[in-house]
Amino acid sequence: MDSRLQPLAEEKVFKDPVHKYIYVQDRTIWNLINTKEFQRLRRIRQLGTSYLTFHGAEHSRFSHSLGVYEITRKIISQFERGGYEDWPKDEKLVTLCAALLHDVGHGPFSHSIEEVFDTHHEDWTCRILLEETEVNRVLREVDPGFPEQVAAVIRKTYEKPIVISLVSSQMDADRMDYLLRDAYFTGVNYGTFDLERILRVLRPHKGRIVVKESGMHAVEDYLMSRYQMYWQIYFHPVTRSSEIILRQILRRAKELYMNGYAFGWMIEPIRRLISGTIDVPSYLALDEASMQTAFTLWQSEEDALLADLCRRFIDRKLYKYVTMDEADESLWASIREQFAAIGLHPDYHLEVDFPFDLAYAVYRPGTRGAKKNDKPPILVLDRDDVVSEISQKSDIIRSITGMHRGKYHLYYPYEPLLESANKLSPDLRKLFELD
Amino acid sequence: MDSRLQPLAEEKVFKDPVHKYIYVQDRTIWNLINTKEFQRLRRIRQLGTSYLTFHGAEHSRFSHSLGVYEITRKIISQFERGGYEDWPKDEKLVTLCAALLHDVGHGPFSHSIEEVFDTHHEDWTCRILLEETEVNRVLREVDPGFPEQVAAVIRKTYEKPIVISLVSSQMDADRMDYLLRDAYFTGVNYGTFDLERILRVLRPHKGRIVVKESGMHAVEDYLMSRYQMYWQIYFHPVTRSSEIILRQILRRAKELYMNGYAFGWMIEPIRRLISGTIDVPSYLALDEASMQTAFTLWQSEEDALLADLCRRFIDRKLYKYVTMDEADESLWASIREQFAAIGLHPDYHLEVDFPFDLAYAVYRPGTRGAKKNDKPPILVLDRDDVVSEISQKSDIIRSITGMHRGKYHLYYPYEPLLESANKLSPDLRKLFELD
Amino acid sequence: MDSRLQPLAEEKVFKDPVHKYIYVQDRTIWNLINTKEFQRLRRIRQLGTSYLTFHGAEHSRFSHSLGVYEITRKIISQFERGGYEDWPKDEKLVTLCAALLHDVGHGPFSHSIEEVFDTHHEDWTCRILLEETEVNRVLREVDPGFPEQVAAVIRKTYEKPIVISLVSSQMDADRMDYLLRDAYFTGVNYGTFDLERILRVLRPHKGRIVVKESGMHAVEDYLMSRYQMYWQIYFHPVTRSSEIILRQILRRAKELYMNGYAFGWMIEPIRRLISGTIDVPSYLALDEASMQTAFTLWQSEEDALLADLCRRFIDRKLYKYVTMDEADESLWASIREQFAAIGLHPDYHLEVDFPFDLAYAVYRPGTRGAKKNDKPPILVLDRDDVVSEISQKSDIIRSITGMHRGKYHLYYPYEPLLESANKLSPDLRKLFELD
Amino acid sequence: MDSRLQPLAEEKVFKDPVHKYIYVQDRTIWNLINTKEFQRLRRIRQLGTSYLTFHGAEHSRFSHSLGVYEITRKIISQFERGGYEDWPKDEKLVTLCAALLHDVGHGPFSHSIEEVFDTHHEDWTCRILLEETEVNRVLREVDPGFPEQVAAVIRKTYEKPIVISLVSSQMDADRMDYLLRDAYFTGVNYGTFDLERILRVLRPHKGRIVVKESGMHAVEDYLMSRYQMYWQIYFHPVTRSSEIILRQILRRAKELYMNGYAFGWMIEPIRRLISGTIDVPSYLALDEASMQTAFTLWQSEEDALLADLCRRFIDRKLYKYVTMDEADESLWASIREQFAAIGLHPDYHLEVDFPFDLAYAVYRPGTRGAKKNDKPPILVLDRDDVVSEISQKSDIIRSITGMHRGKYHLYYPYEPLLESANKLSPDLRKLFELD
Repeated sequence: MDSRLQPLAEEKVFKDPVHKYIYVQDRTIWNLINTKEFQRLRRIRQLGTSYLTFHGAEHSRFSHSLGVYEITRKIISQFERGGYEDWPKDEKLVTLCAALLHDVGHGPFSHSIEEVFDTHHEDWTCRILLEETEVNRVLREVDPGFPEQVAAVIRKTYEKPIVISLVSSQMDADRMDYLLRDAYFTGVNYGTFDLERILRVLRPHKGRIVVKESGMHAVEDYLMSRYQMYWQIYFHPVTRSSEIILRQILRRAKELYMNGYAFGWMIEPIRRLISGTIDVPSYLALDEASMQTAFTLWQSEEDALLADLCRRFIDRKLYKYVTMDEADESLWASIREQFAAIGLHPDYHLEVDFPFDLAYAVYRPGTRGAKKNDKPPILVLDRDDVVSEISQKSDIIRSITGMHRGKYHLYYPYEPLLESANKLSPDLRKLFELD
Repeated sequence: MDSRLQPLAEEKVFKDPVHKYIYVQDRTIWNLINTKEFQRLRRIRQLGTSYLTFHGAEHSRFSHSLGVYEITRKIISQFERGGYEDWPKDEKLVTLCAALLHDVGHGPFSHSIEEVFDTHHEDWTCRILLEETEVNRVLREVDPGFPEQVAAVIRKTYEKPIVISLVSSQMDADRMDYLLRDAYFTGVNYGTFDLERILRVLRPHKGRIVVKESGMHAVEDYLMSRYQMYWQIYFHPVTRSSEIILRQILRRAKELYMNGYAFGWMIEPIRRLISGTIDVPSYLALDEASMQTAFTLWQSEEDALLADLCRRFIDRKLYKYVTMDEADESLWASIREQFAAIGLHPDYHLEVDFPFDLAYAVYRPGTRGAKKNDKPPILVLDRDDVVSEISQKSDIIRSITGMHRGKYHLYYPYEPLLESANKLSPDLRKLFELD
Repeated sequence: MDSRLQPLAEEKVFKDPVHKYIYVQDRTIWNLINTKEFQRLRRIRQLGTSYLTFHGAEHSRFSHSLGVYEITRKIISQFERGGYEDWPKDEKLVTLCAALLHDVGHGPFSHSIEEVFDTHHEDWTCRILLEETEVNRVLREVDPGFPEQVAAVIRKTYEKPIVISLVSSQMDADRMDYLLRDAYFTGVNYGTFDLERILRVLRPHKGRIVVKESGMHAVEDYLMSRYQMYWQIYFHPVTRSSEIILRQILRRAKELYMNGYAFGWMIEPIRRLISGTIDVPSYLALDEASMQTAFTLWQSEEDALLADLCRRFIDRKLYKYVTMDEADESLWASIREQFAAIGLHPDYHLEVDFPFDLAYAVYRPGTRGAKKNDKPPILVLDRDDVVSEISQKSDIIRSITGMHRGKYHLYYPYEPLLESANKLSPDLRKLFELD
Repeated sequence: MDSRLQPLAEEKVFKDPVHKYIYVQDRTIWNLINTKEFQRLRRIRQLGTSYLTFHGAEHSRFSHSLGVYEITRKIISQFERGGYEDWPKDEKLVTLCAALLHDVGHGPFSHSIEEVFDTHHEDWTCRILLEETEVNRVLREVDPGFPEQVAAVIRKTYEKPIVISLVSSQMDADRMDYLLRDAYFTGVNYGTFDLERILRVLRPHKGRIVVKESGMHAVEDYLMSRYQMYWQIYFHPVTRSSEIILRQILRRAKELYMNGYAFGWMIEPIRRLISGTIDVPSYLALDEASMQTAFTLWQSEEDALLADLCRRFIDRKLYKYVTMDEADESLWASIREQFAAIGLHPDYHLEVDFPFDLAYAVYRPGTRGAKKNDKPPILVLDRDDVVSEISQKSDIIRSITGMHRGKYHLYYPYEPLLESANKLSPDLRKLFELD
């Protein structure tokens, strides 16, 4: 048993819709949950702007983080009950802490903020683990070197690769929780798969996590769920529209700030974010409440573009979109030109979106080339103890591997186009359904 | 058929975890949902501070309002299919609008704000219906008198009592949706009952809604669900603790404002709320994001009490509580005295709570005396067309009618007491578990 | 750890709709499941004739028995993980075997057969454990005295009362499984309660199983579920009607046999059942398939009464019923007389049923008087380690304790009455809705 | 509206676990359900011997037939509400009757019986519709030609192809119900898809049923469900083993009968089945109860092979299996030879099974060549009213179209081989895991 564990006098329990209950048995985990940095995750939604498409998707990263912890706890319990020698028992606490804290560096509307301000939530996670925070204080109580160990798991440089692959791989606790949780809260039934079965067939094996061949069907089902969730939920064009508006707000605010614009309303953490001078305490002061408050108040800003974008976000007057099968650069250039001619800002009022994102490939078998963000593939252990990459074994997985589809979407504000429709060329009027 | 209906060219659909789908078939309903006043409900949680106890309870009043609309729509569809003469067909649109909008006047953390600032969400609902808002504009498009008709249903003065009882009674669409929804999002299974069965046995009958006797068991089950939900969710002592902190923040802010305190951070809508000068536009600018932002920033206020209360709320460092079977005024006086002696504010650091609230009585058969907020009782229609109040028919309902239990809870901040424990009397040290 | 356990090389798993999976880890349990006596339970329905009312209720005692085993296994696992001293570790195997086998003596349509032929399934269970069977052989492999130990648990004479109370009390694994399972297969949602929560709050305490006070609400919910299930499922008047027909068939066959009637079709195990000379091998040859086959073939018997009753059962032409608030002996005598006058058999064509059965009292706190079949009450353990009977603690349980309701039902064949309606008195014609 | 409908005074309701409730509104449907031929479906399991693998799979064809009726009723309701001109309103009753009765000709353990005795359940369905039965009598009450109309739908010769495609196509009410129902009762979650969504996007279109393109994802999910269900449930090797035993019993009984063997136990309907002289009344007297009773009693037959096979079925002592990647005729010949040498019957004790069955192809786009049992493909209707076959539109469906996998399984009785292991060649000993 991991000697660093400190059992609580009485097990603590959280009611959770996805896992029924989440069980906390260790003092360090309990104390981490009660830090202000972890509590802050209650104010950050798991799915960003998706709640504007699926009104149930209001769940927070707090609940997801508890879920990832719980799945990890169950996997390790099973490894311990099975007495498998390939599981290093002393790694329990560091694994649980990394599972619980892996998202603690997420900011409000994370993906958009990262894109506009070039920050990375994993870097923030490590800084929160290592700088002067309540989280750091709790981890140091275990051992002065413990914060660095947890950070190494997050950075994927930890010396035991099996710990890393539990926390981050193509079938890790993170993905298993978010598929189930996002399906539950949006209300779709695409994301459900047999978690209990998968947990029973995971095995530690020579420094990696593998799946017993008898559970391969459950894994196929898990990957099918991912496939459906990507196209039904994560890439939903209305959600993309709301993300575009959000990004335009942030880009406009940054541009204005850089040009010395005097904001009617600003608070220090947001100013620091925009100016690129943000530090850990300011970062922790950010949450989706403060961002939404900013947008609400910026509706009264003098800059009409910023005010309009904020109004669109707050009142959910999103851009519309049209679909195109192929890229057509010359058409897009023509649109930009005509938009400018009727007083629209092509940089803000038009966005061409191709909803394909490597981070979301349903499944990628290869790790050759070893890109930074590549996750280890899913490995299958057969009866003769031979390990194979799963798409070698499964026709259905092979058939979806690398599959991507998706069409070009053009996002644009409908009302101003309608007003100036007579100034647009006939093909644009047709494209934007203005006639 | 209600001649004021304007069918949409194509039915619109919302994915909803509770009802699977919510169907919008009428243009007025669709336009109301897209008003900014209705969209604002996305930023107000259905269960206030309960998410601090049940982390899944992050769902908004937006989703609940759609749910109430959907249940009402289903009831009316059934009445129409059945061709019951007692259902006035021309009342469909006004009923649906009232169902959809009945909560549009809710502010952020509504119950606490109403208590401290003596406002009433039903008044705000009516003002939003009647003053210059997008909602009012959409309703007026139906008919200039239509906003007033919808408001009359909300105020319970509408000329057709059957419309009022669909929207507000002891088994109305509002209650049916919130029990199912709150159970779903908290993850408990207490709140589930057989909605489909209940909808099938409702009948319009002489200006009232009654239940066919064959469905009485489903109604019993619904009332048992309410009983369990009140005690497990709505009256949960940890939720009460967070509500107390919230109320203390608001009371302190008001007190400071009245005394001319200069806030380091303030925005106009909150200033107006605190000063009692709030109007519709300011009220609509309030949401839980802006309140939480205020609390986050007030952590740096000079007033130590306000700052501490805000920190408690934001970081979830709530008051602890102890349970007492009976009221003990002299004990409470002694506690207040000793609290003051060690520098605590008895008005802010101690609260005696008795979690019984008439609004939440599981079921009340009587309407005699006709209190303002009394909801009509549940009526049963037997095979001989005789109508009885349900507790006359059901042993189990009679046995829980008027039942209330609950104990006194004393809420207090644990850490400062622990620091000064040696200055407290032995019975207090024992009571607060300080030894 | 119980030294008699023999872990399987690899855990075996059954897919189960109620518990998701059922896990078998011990060789004795695995071998018991594979005996022909246990496999026979696949051919006996859990709910007897209820499938004629609720078509989903086709589940077998085999699945229920596995479920009882699984719940018991989970409770014991939790006791072991908690390391509670009051749990006698050496009793694990005997408890699991008793849980698995407690229903192995059930015959086809058990309750009806027991009533007509005065047999008792618990006696048969013990005989199957102790006489020459595959079950006995497997148990003897553990220890020659082991069959007797398991039988003692069934008979409630085992020396460790805590083992008995796990297998048989007012909140035992048996009842918990059947409520959940019967609710699942009938499709009602009355029978659902929070099993996981209840399992977490059970504790071994001085030779008894108690419930921690913090779980009392879950127990209330469990008892409410029972209340609803009794009235909605177990006492459903259509099910009662099918049980009456079944009992009349058996009574008639017995009567004919005693009078020397020559059956056109008979098989030996049924002959022995009817003649009261049945032994273990013949009993084991009985199942619901053979009983149904008998009824199918007896439709062609010369005895018109037997043939008619069998046709009613097989083709589901059940007796109708009318409801009466009070007992009325003189009315019933008059009905019998008039029935006889038109050629009906009052002993077979009329049954007065009062659906109240002590075995099904929702909850009985008392055990004084110690009736043979009294189950131990539910005990609550508070924070000060004081044990109380639960109705002392819970208003809602007190209010339903001993509550019984129910009305008199008169069951009768509708068609022959209708044919002779003109020969019946007006009050009978009215009662039986013949006019 | 279909003028042949006769609304019931009060809608009848069946509680159903899959659809919550099944609603009967028409007198003909109600009367059909109450015929003895339809009630007989209660005694025939939907999934044959699958209950020996998945103990929850004890549900009957009665419940499935109601489910198919209910889905069909919902589809037609939606067509009526939508007012689509391509739906022929007068076809409602014939469609509902065909949906309800499409399986009424199924016998006990249908697939095995059909294979051994070369009967076809669809032929029996038509005979039950057209010969002298209660079903026929009820149908004739509608119109003397009505039985023939319903039979034409079953035979796929009905003049309106849209009616046929509702009852039988690659996404018909039959398949939708059985996937959901079999998933529910086995307890797996593979078979769940969004039925409500699919029902909303079905449209009548030029004599066919098509799916609106906006619902294509739900259809993909439905086909993925089928894929998983085939491999997890319908082709499960343990179920195949029990089917093999069953077929061997029937083959042996037939062989014995043809050779003049005198059975110790036999009933007339089974004798007629075996001798190939069965007629409608005898066929209707068959059910799974009588077949199981036969097997139970045949355990005492003099013919040792028959007795052993019956014991294996009743006590669930099934054949084991080994898996082979490729066909190996010479190995199989060698096995047969060695089996014979040690006194086994190669015709009964060995079976090579390749679990691929055209009837179960996940999806087949083509209908060219028009094989008798080919079901119409799934058609998608896009925004421009163009109809395409679905695999033209969906990458994922194209990738699974025609995909089949599956390996050869050799089934054999383990114990007798083990006893004579020393007489077998080393490669057989290795193959059958006897060392």
